[in-house]
Amino acid sequence: MNADVTAHPHPKNDAFLAACEAVVGATNLITGDDMARYLTDWRGRFTGHARAVVRPADTAQVAAIVRHCHERRVPVVPQGGNTGLVLGSVPDASGAAIVLSLARLNRIREVDPVNDTLTAEAGCLLQQVQDAAAAAGRLFPLSLASEGSCTLGGNLSTNAGGTAVLRYGNARELALGLEVVTADGRIWNGLRGLRKDNTGYDLRNLFIGAEGTLGIITAAVVKLFAQPAARVTALFALDAPPQALSLLALARQRCDATLTGFELMSDICLQLVEKHFPQLRTPFNARHPQYVLLELSDAESDAHAASLLEAVASSAMAQGLVRDAVVASSLPQSASIWALREHISMAQAVEGKNIKHDIAVPISRIADFIAETDALLQQAFPGCRMVSFGHLGDGNLHYNVSAPLGQDDQVFLQQQAAVNLIVHDQVHKFGGSISAEHGLGALKREEIRRYKSGTEMDMMMAIKRALDPLNLMNPGKVL
Amino acid sequence: MNADVTAHPHPKNDAFLAACEAVVGATNLITGDDMARYLTDWRGRFTGHARAVVRPADTAQVAAIVRHCHERRVPVVPQGGNTGLVLGSVPDASGAAIVLSLARLNRIREVDPVNDTLTAEAGCLLQQVQDAAAAAGRLFPLSLASEGSCTLGGNLSTNAGGTAVLRYGNARELALGLEVVTADGRIWNGLRGLRKDNTGYDLRNLFIGAEGTLGIITAAVVKLFAQPAARVTALFALDAPPQALSLLALARQRCDATLTGFELMSDICLQLVEKHFPQLRTPFNARHPQYVLLELSDAESDAHAASLLEAVASSAMAQGLVRDAVVASSLPQSASIWALREHISMAQAVEGKNIKHDIAVPISRIADFIAETDALLQQAFPGCRMVSFGHLGDGNLHYNVSAPLGQDDQVFLQQQAAVNLIVHDQVHKFGGSISAEHGLGALKREEIRRYKSGTEMDMMMAIKRALDPLNLMNPGKVL
Repeated sequence: MNADVTAHPHPKNDAFLAACEAVVGATNLITGDDMARYLTDWRGRFTGHARAVVRPADTAQVAAIVRHCHERRVPVVPQGGNTGLVLGSVPDASGAAIVLSLARLNRIREVDPVNDTLTAEAGCLLQQVQDAAAAAGRLFPLSLASEGSCTLGGNLSTNAGGTAVLRYGNARELALGLEVVTADGRIWNGLRGLRKDNTGYDLRNLFIGAEGTLGIITAAVVKLFAQPAARVTALFALDAPPQALSLLALARQRCDATLTGFELMSDICLQLVEKHFPQLRTPFNARHPQYVLLELSDAESDAHAASLLEAVASSAMAQGLVRDAVVASSLPQSASIWALREHISMAQAVEGKNIKHDIAVPISRIADFIAETDALLQQAFPGCRMVSFGHLGDGNLHYNVSAPLGQDDQVFLQQQAAVNLIVHDQVHKFGGSISAEHGLGALKREEIRRYKSGTEMDMMMAIKRALDPLNLMNPGKVL
Repeated sequence: MNADVTAHPHPKNDAFLAACEAVVGATNLITGDDMARYLTDWRGRFTGHARAVVRPADTAQVAAIVRHCHERRVPVVPQGGNTGLVLGSVPDASGAAIVLSLARLNRIREVDPVNDTLTAEAGCLLQQVQDAAAAAGRLFPLSLASEGSCTLGGNLSTNAGGTAVLRYGNARELALGLEVVTADGRIWNGLRGLRKDNTGYDLRNLFIGAEGTLGIITAAVVKLFAQPAARVTALFALDAPPQALSLLALARQRCDATLTGFELMSDICLQLVEKHFPQLRTPFNARHPQYVLLELSDAESDAHAASLLEAVASSAMAQGLVRDAVVASSLPQSASIWALREHISMAQAVEGKNIKHDIAVPISRIADFIAETDALLQQAFPGCRMVSFGHLGDGNLHYNVSAPLGQDDQVFLQQQAAVNLIVHDQVHKFGGSISAEHGLGALKREEIRRYKSGTEMDMMMAIKRALDPLNLMNPGKVL
């Protein structure tokens, strides 16, 4: 295999590559140095090797390529925007696999505003799907930081989350039907646009979140929704996570499905934002330990949404849940509140590297989880700084740990395994997930064995063997 | 096997039954005539045979019984309330299987109003789960005609639908985690109460809707919601299904998630109701071809919900979508509108037997489906009467065909296979499902092969073999 990696054989001298070239044409079979951008992961932590990058034009070509791979036992690494965070879309170091890029499968096949569905190919950018829905006067609510680069196929294969899960669910909840190329190169047309269908096993949800290890999603039917008439935002200052949970319960009761965002941020997060982006300021006169950003999406009007939010705010003040509150009265004010939330990741990056965790626990246990885990980490790494924020309404925290002031980041990063062990053991103890939004990929494949039962791992292995008996679909990921 | 069926051996003379008795005790091992109510399906169409009915008390006992079955190759038919409509929960005629009743697993294990989750065992009645949620001030929105008799395990195993799917989804969308006894008698604890968890294959959704053919659901974590502050109902009179679709689009735009019910009923349905239940009357002065029942569940107040609904009604009148409209101004008025809808099934039954279909098509194609299929049926069976109604907002119709006036029902019922073929071929042509809510069971197991691709059937078979290699879990159902 190493010979392959270094020699980059011309298709003419390699029957398998010649067969691939016959399917996709010479310009869409990439070998040698031109493969570089397909081989390195989004965060630049790992570069793999591949026999070739193959860029089919449509589902039939994907199936033909997979059949060639199946025949010759060549592993296939499906790739969309390659924006994943768990090394799920890059090949391993062996050079045995091809990267199968879905980028050219980028057609919106159908928008049906009456059925409230859209059918798109896997290589469509998320933003392209959002735009196509908007052009038909509808909303496709999935929204992520990488929406200009990530693809629908990747969103579904990793069951992406994002900022509107509270109201609309994860990618899984937004998909009604799939088209899939199976491990032996057949095409399954499961592109159903139905809200109700009870005719056998739920294959759709098996491929969603499987990170390309069971087959390749080539297209999907997704749900659309009404565009909200108004969006309003508020920022609340409060003492501690338990008050945030009471505020969440109050907002859910009063606003029900209009509640679309509920983000918790600690003061240390906003101090970092203000330090590195001095144009951004919290709207309060004093500092407070915790902040909650709350957003409503309303079907009626700005005035209705604002009055609903003001009612929540005055109730929360009256109940002593919050220390202060600001309801945005204009779009710019709303944008400046969101800017605080959205600059946390960048502020962290400017401050230095830290150890990140994408975790979820039951919402009712978040406060205890934070208190107990913060204390364990302080005990093990005195002075370490907790840069925690996230989608509290979904029970999902970005629970990040920075070096103590004065300690070199690189020195602290050497403790990563020990920090992960403390955090993830705590997550497990609290009935949580060590990967809420990002998947397992190659990054957490070993670690998950510590937390899943043998029974669950055995069932996953049995399904993998049933649908991909030759272990050719994205090997080394998930399982 | 026939000897078993007729002789009903005493456990003392049957090592397998003795082993089962040692697990559940003599009073919970039922043989002989006492098995009767477990062997006949809800509609009384089929009576099977069984070696015994076994009633374990808890999950550990379920696992122990399944291990005995696995060791001795005895098929297992899991049963909840036995209210299914597709012969999914009764054994076949061979007498080889045991019926494993989940009825004694009826504990509410936990209600967590902050996490908005409830953990219940499979044998809990649906109404018991609704009541436990309500006692904690929360809503469990799954609601079916049989809610006083059906069980949560059966609801999940058949992915039940019901009257609130438009807002809250099917049973599938309401479950966060499961506990399952596998085909070899192991216990999988997947009772996670998380909104986000991306750590491997979606086993939960594989067991949901599998009708007990892959393993036995013994408990589940389900989602709870805020109790709505108000529910208001309206009845609209209109010309034809296309106007109903335009009204649906208008209501979705104006009301978004507050829209919880959207039911279409043809005049023939309401004429039957008025004929057989003379105390029930449509609230209009004239007859109209079609009617829509619309319901809103509102987080604010009766007044807010009523004003929203009145705005929809006046818009619909102004656009000429509807011929008349009544917004219920009181609970009794609302109840009398719902009574029209709820008495359709009974009115049909009094009128005589008819040929029922539980179908779904994309919402945008419903009007064409109805027009074209009605015409095909009239051509094949002149004078047959269409008693169609259903959850238009979900694309789900109860598309029922009655004998022509004057023709004996039993004569018409002999045409059932021919009627089904016309209707289901049309459903398939329109991209629909021949079982929207009820599952396949033994009833539609053969028929589904006509409509599913070989690729899909092969994947389903591969999964069945992977998780139940001895084919002991509810054999003869689904596949």
